[in-house]
Amino acid sequence: MTRQLPDRRFLGDLRRLLPQERVVTAAPTLAALSRDQTEMLEPGSALAAAFPVSTEEVAALQRCASEHRVPVVPRGAGTGLAGGATAVDGCLILSLMRMDRIIEIDREDLVAVVQPGVINATLAGAVARAGLFYPPDPSSFEISSIGGNLATNAGGLRCVKYGVTREATLGLEIVLADGAVLRTGHRSVKGVAGYDLTALFVGSEGTLGVITEATLRLRTAPPPPGTLLASFRSLPYAAQATARITAAGAAPSVLELIDRTTIRAIEDWQHLGLDTNAAAILIARSDTPDYGRSELDLVAVACREAGAVDILRATDEFESEGLMAARRAALPALERLGMTLLEDVAVPRGRVVDLVAAVEEIAERHAMTIGTFGHVGDGNLHPTFVMPRGDPDARSRAALAAEELLRTTLDLGGTLTGEHGIGLLKRHLLGEELGSVGLQASRAIKQALDPLGILNPGKVLAPDS
Amino acid sequence: MTRQLPDRRFLGDLRRLLPQERVVTAAPTLAALSRDQTEMLEPGSALAAAFPVSTEEVAALQRCASEHRVPVVPRGAGTGLAGGATAVDGCLILSLMRMDRIIEIDREDLVAVVQPGVINATLAGAVARAGLFYPPDPSSFEISSIGGNLATNAGGLRCVKYGVTREATLGLEIVLADGAVLRTGHRSVKGVAGYDLTALFVGSEGTLGVITEATLRLRTAPPPPGTLLASFRSLPYAAQATARITAAGAAPSVLELIDRTTIRAIEDWQHLGLDTNAAAILIARSDTPDYGRSELDLVAVACREAGAVDILRATDEFESEGLMAARRAALPALERLGMTLLEDVAVPRGRVVDLVAAVEEIAERHAMTIGTFGHVGDGNLHPTFVMPRGDPDARSRAALAAEELLRTTLDLGGTLTGEHGIGLLKRHLLGEELGSVGLQASRAIKQALDPLGILNPGKVLAPDS
Repeated sequence: MTRQLPDRRFLGDLRRLLPQERVVTAAPTLAALSRDQTEMLEPGSALAAAFPVSTEEVAALQRCASEHRVPVVPRGAGTGLAGGATAVDGCLILSLMRMDRIIEIDREDLVAVVQPGVINATLAGAVARAGLFYPPDPSSFEISSIGGNLATNAGGLRCVKYGVTREATLGLEIVLADGAVLRTGHRSVKGVAGYDLTALFVGSEGTLGVITEATLRLRTAPPPPGTLLASFRSLPYAAQATARITAAGAAPSVLELIDRTTIRAIEDWQHLGLDTNAAAILIARSDTPDYGRSELDLVAVACREAGAVDILRATDEFESEGLMAARRAALPALERLGMTLLEDVAVPRGRVVDLVAAVEEIAERHAMTIGTFGHVGDGNLHPTFVMPRGDPDARSRAALAAEELLRTTLDLGGTLTGEHGIGLLKRHLLGEELGSVGLQASRAIKQALDPLGILNPGKVLAPDS
Repeated sequence: MTRQLPDRRFLGDLRRLLPQERVVTAAPTLAALSRDQTEMLEPGSALAAAFPVSTEEVAALQRCASEHRVPVVPRGAGTGLAGGATAVDGCLILSLMRMDRIIEIDREDLVAVVQPGVINATLAGAVARAGLFYPPDPSSFEISSIGGNLATNAGGLRCVKYGVTREATLGLEIVLADGAVLRTGHRSVKGVAGYDLTALFVGSEGTLGVITEATLRLRTAPPPPGTLLASFRSLPYAAQATARITAAGAAPSVLELIDRTTIRAIEDWQHLGLDTNAAAILIARSDTPDYGRSELDLVAVACREAGAVDILRATDEFESEGLMAARRAALPALERLGMTLLEDVAVPRGRVVDLVAAVEEIAERHAMTIGTFGHVGDGNLHPTFVMPRGDPDARSRAALAAEELLRTTLDLGGTLTGEHGIGLLKRHLLGEELGSVGLQASRAIKQALDPLGILNPGKVLAPDS
């Protein structure tokens, strides 16, 4: 306990910076704030949590943390799936959730300026009421914060047409490790003045700086989408259909896949009338002005040519949401079957069949249930390992099987994570994807921007060995 | 001449690395290789130029340059407009133009893997023959290299719909200052493993590493575009039309503006039948499957509502190219009038009218001809200062006026450069855009990746003062 005295000094300084009610040291609250949604990880023991309400306060907290060499773990809504917000021993948890203002929505410039604690759905709603559109829609959109979306470069269903969070980010305000306030990017759509610091901070999982404001790119709201659901007797047929849809020049705003295991889990639960003999379902949406009709015609032809046995098309908005319900039920349906480990791999478009085959092979060999669903149009799938509850070994067996899957993904030219991040969960594998030079370059950048190593230490980059 | 002996040693080592015909020291050749298309800059005196043909050779050259502390100026086709490829004293010019192979075009994964010396048009043509599409199309596409496009994060006409070079880049192979070979990114569309090094190197103008290979994102080829040309009696009407086009939900694949000065220069030269009383022309293209008809209908309505006096629509591909000819003639038409300084500013979408008004005010106050044209849909315009030939002061007066314009652009929330880069030309102003913290963070990253400061020194970031 050699830290005890310095820790007390730090807490004293902390309490001078923020009003009492915005500094928390009570153990139960700290425990709750020490986790995100990555069940498999055990958090460290935090010193305190702070809830700043302004950039100036965040800067003051970072100066204080720097002075005392106290690690800082920034935190949004805590919906992360890779342990990016997991507390480390002796840290200050920096919650950005009190900074939750939408500062402006500008219809002429087509931008929104927001604080990090705004919930994605809150922003999307406010933007929609202005007749505009904020595309990034991670499945967690109803509960995840924009700050967290930025920190992980979150994806979502509509990314296949509109790009991920990075593509929607024009500029950032960031508090650096030492408390300096950095502004990156611009309010214009284009701009190449200096290094692309905006892109560097997006997806850096709180290890390079704390995002305190973002200028986001909006679009004119598209018409309500039409939806199509196609069933296939074999997974390769569904993958084939995906390739044909793209080749036909269609650009659906959503293109999702659900495999047999997941279909059956959904159907057992929700009785939506899905074909439980199907090996896979594709769900496509189009938001072209004719309610997606002409584009979904192309999609339908592509699916039929690829061997779809059944094609459903929604004829109105109500039916359209009904078809999407199947996709929305995918993860909760699998979660009913046991504990889950949600994977997040992405491969080149042409390798989706190989990826799904690898998942099936791994499931069989490990005698394990794996349901796969996700953003097939982008090659980004979420194989979900389902473990029986009350089986003490299941977790470690699933982790092992998942690691095999990750290595296979790399062999297929893919990546360890399409949209969730590295966090703590996958940092031990990062070197296999980046290579030693990539790891070294990343460490050099981390060292340049956070020389004391106090920002979310141990996340993304494992401690030097 | 204290460098003379070490320089001779460096040249000796250089000649051991590459065959004789790929190391050049002849003064006339070096002089030609010491410039890009930034007329206003005087290059330094280079030691030698090298033409590597492989990543291994680039790595060996960088190791050698590191050992001898010789600055390296990487170079593509030399079409840069900000002095990014201007030689510095005592440098090795590293031409990537012999590395000009298209390694693969993959129709399933929708990627191209290319070396940096491939000309943009060569790649675009090869991709088109495979039924695919590489969107980034800087106006220099027939003569500029992909490596240069990547180094500057080049834009172009189709970026308004398809994004700039960064958005088309999935991964890079880079030789770092010390010769280490870094691979960034992935072949999948999505991926968030580690820092976004790909985006960091794109647009870094050869100051952080030498790009030796790129994995580029392709799309299915869209149908041939339809084209519309609308004439306006006032510039604000044209800007208004641009906003209405976006608000109507149209996503033209090209949306360009040409102002009165430029219209008259084009008409005097090419006699295309443009309305020389018009204050501005908008040219829009759409590549939707119906030859852009439905989308150009929306554009036409928006233009008419904003007060267009004349709207021409091409009814076939031949006419379509005819209307585009006006835009393509813009810069050469202005160049006929005298020496030119092509600016490259970008503002938030809603500030285009203010930007154009500022250009007119500056033109009048300085009694100077400035023709403006460019990518109005992105807020990225190219005010072009025309100087009478044989007027010795014209250049410095234009440079002063341009600097006023750049400062006004920053005041409007815009950026010093939308797509050309900072290079040498604008480095003295970069701090005004980035702020001192931004400049410091950029320097820290440069220092982390190029500790000896040998990669394109003095570009983007001015020497420390």
